[in-house]
Amino acid sequence: MSRWGKREDMIVHEAEPYNAEPPPRALADRALTPVDTFYSRNHGPIPRLDPRAWRLSVDGEVERELALSLSDLRSGFEHRTLTATLQCAGNRRAGLIEVGDIPGEAPWGSGAISTAEWTGVRLADVLGAAGLGPRAAHVAFAAPDVAAEADPPQPYGGSIPVAKALAGEVLLAWGMNGAPLPAVHGGPVRVVVPGHIGARSVKWVHRVTAQERPSDNYFQATVYRLLTADADPSATGPGDGLSLGPVAVNADILRPGDGEVLPAGATEISGYAFAGERGVARVDVSLDLGDSWVQADLDERADPWAWRLWRVTLDLPVGPAVITARAWDTAAACQPESARHLWNPKGYVNNSWARIHVIGRD
Amino acid sequence: MSRWGKREDMIVHEAEPYNAEPPPRALADRALTPVDTFYSRNHGPIPRLDPRAWRLSVDGEVERELALSLSDLRSGFEHRTLTATLQCAGNRRAGLIEVGDIPGEAPWGSGAISTAEWTGVRLADVLGAAGLGPRAAHVAFAAPDVAAEADPPQPYGGSIPVAKALAGEVLLAWGMNGAPLPAVHGGPVRVVVPGHIGARSVKWVHRVTAQERPSDNYFQATVYRLLTADADPSATGPGDGLSLGPVAVNADILRPGDGEVLPAGATEISGYAFAGERGVARVDVSLDLGDSWVQADLDERADPWAWRLWRVTLDLPVGPAVITARAWDTAAACQPESARHLWNPKGYVNNSWARIHVIGRD
Repeated sequence: MSRWGKREDMIVHEAEPYNAEPPPRALADRALTPVDTFYSRNHGPIPRLDPRAWRLSVDGEVERELALSLSDLRSGFEHRTLTATLQCAGNRRAGLIEVGDIPGEAPWGSGAISTAEWTGVRLADVLGAAGLGPRAAHVAFAAPDVAAEADPPQPYGGSIPVAKALAGEVLLAWGMNGAPLPAVHGGPVRVVVPGHIGARSVKWVHRVTAQERPSDNYFQATVYRLLTADADPSATGPGDGLSLGPVAVNADILRPGDGEVLPAGATEISGYAFAGERGVARVDVSLDLGDSWVQADLDERADPWAWRLWRVTLDLPVGPAVITARAWDTAAACQPESARHLWNPKGYVNNSWARIHVIGRD
Repeated sequence: MSRWGKREDMIVHEAEPYNAEPPPRALADRALTPVDTFYSRNHGPIPRLDPRAWRLSVDGEVERELALSLSDLRSGFEHRTLTATLQCAGNRRAGLIEVGDIPGEAPWGSGAISTAEWTGVRLADVLGAAGLGPRAAHVAFAAPDVAAEADPPQPYGGSIPVAKALAGEVLLAWGMNGAPLPAVHGGPVRVVVPGHIGARSVKWVHRVTAQERPSDNYFQATVYRLLTADADPSATGPGDGLSLGPVAVNADILRPGDGEVLPAGATEISGYAFAGERGVARVDVSLDLGDSWVQADLDERADPWAWRLWRVTLDLPVGPAVITARAWDTAAACQPESARHLWNPKGYVNNSWARIHVIGRD
């Protein structure tokens, strides 16, 4: 056990900075992910901040700068609680690494995604109190965790377009699943940007800046960008590639586990699907590599910003079998078939069909 | 020539109701599609309406009902012009028919998509004048063209969610490419719903109804829904399948033409990409079936609601070659590889990779 909450049942890709994901069985069939099971993606050491000393400055293209304590946030703005899924841009990277090596990046499996109930205040309300200026087109977030990997080393940061910042779902959150937000997940206060890559949900946020341009922070300008397959990441710089923000439809199978040997016959298969701002419309599951599909049942619970858990019972044959799943979003966009065609040098956005291998026992 | 504007260079799938698309060469390299070249999708005979007699009624969950003449629309509301692409949900159906028969549906090629500059007033402004009631969740459109194919036969209609109806981009349009909207494209007045399937851009609109539920019109409740591959369309009814609205990222190759014999060597390849509400972020072109890709140049012109034309020059080999193209949207969603896995009984939403066969001549 590390003091950051590392648990026996987490898959720890890196101890420092701490990067860990839950195994599929820990995510399966739970609408909310317990706090200790929630994936953790960090680029620097986890700051231990005194909530009483924490201040948020709001500056840039605003009519009046603000400096808010936690108690100012709590007493000055309406509280809002929502359930939202966060997903790392590198979720399911392991499937891309099977296609080709991705040096220096964690081999996230299906668990760089988790769902919690977040409590805080709307970023829109705080920006309203500051009064956005007419040139404010982006809202940048800064945190105190210094990432040695950044070039040059710098604190973590990022930004979102102002239209998203003003949408009611973006929170400055101090609560997670009904408890105070722990340090490992960004306490005392983090940003929660539902529907966008987890990288924008900046932890330990201490500055919000309205500005004309996107953040020039290393993690906005250079990292978290989709490069072409033939690009050399060591030769790319700020602005290269496709900036990642809203997430594309994705899904994975959580139960049974990959490689599991289980009784043949009626077998319940379950997993998650997530489409961010669009929502999940349908999930299909196949036992014949996609030649035919059975539609899965989507769990009733349908918070607009949360994943949809799904389940279906299929007749598993005796012997080796491949279970394939794919999701469709509300624009009828379907996941692409193959990770091979999605491979990219930093291993982002593997939203290819989910596939696991199991063996049906007689 | 039919009196509905059928042209020698249109591919006419059906004369009555009139259904026609431009050949790829007529769309290629033109940011705006000429009026006579714009695809035409109809479910009934084209009404010939006297613009002076035309009235729009606005009713349902509103504070005050309106009855507006064309001159009321023109004089009572701010005029707005925008460039928007419309795409039929059946665009590129021919690629699905290659996978499996789709009886009773037109074999649209790459041309059930076109782009025009539309002039009219914002639907939001008209709804604002009527005063939307608190229960208004959808806005339905009705037209006078009776579709014999509907069950039971009924005039054409459809609806969009109220959030979309209130977005500034949805127009009641009387102008197309700077000229009065012709009857074949919905004159005197049509709805233009940028980013959604063409079916919602109701032509000859004469009634706008704010309501709690989506339209129960046959073309909203039963048609324009994505069924699973194993569904029997004759056994499905209202509410079955996935309701189509916002469009998924799509692209096609317009030049060279499929089957063309052309000189080997440096060859410019061009086409369109369209991602509706998300926007196009990148287009890749391949001469080796997707093993490697070259990024195409996106045309500068980037009206947010219009397609992106793209072009790239590649070294075409001597002999038979397959040119493949795929687009990515701003959420890094990429088109799926294969039409085989997208086949559905009514042939909607073929957004698989674009592929043409050509022969490079020595």
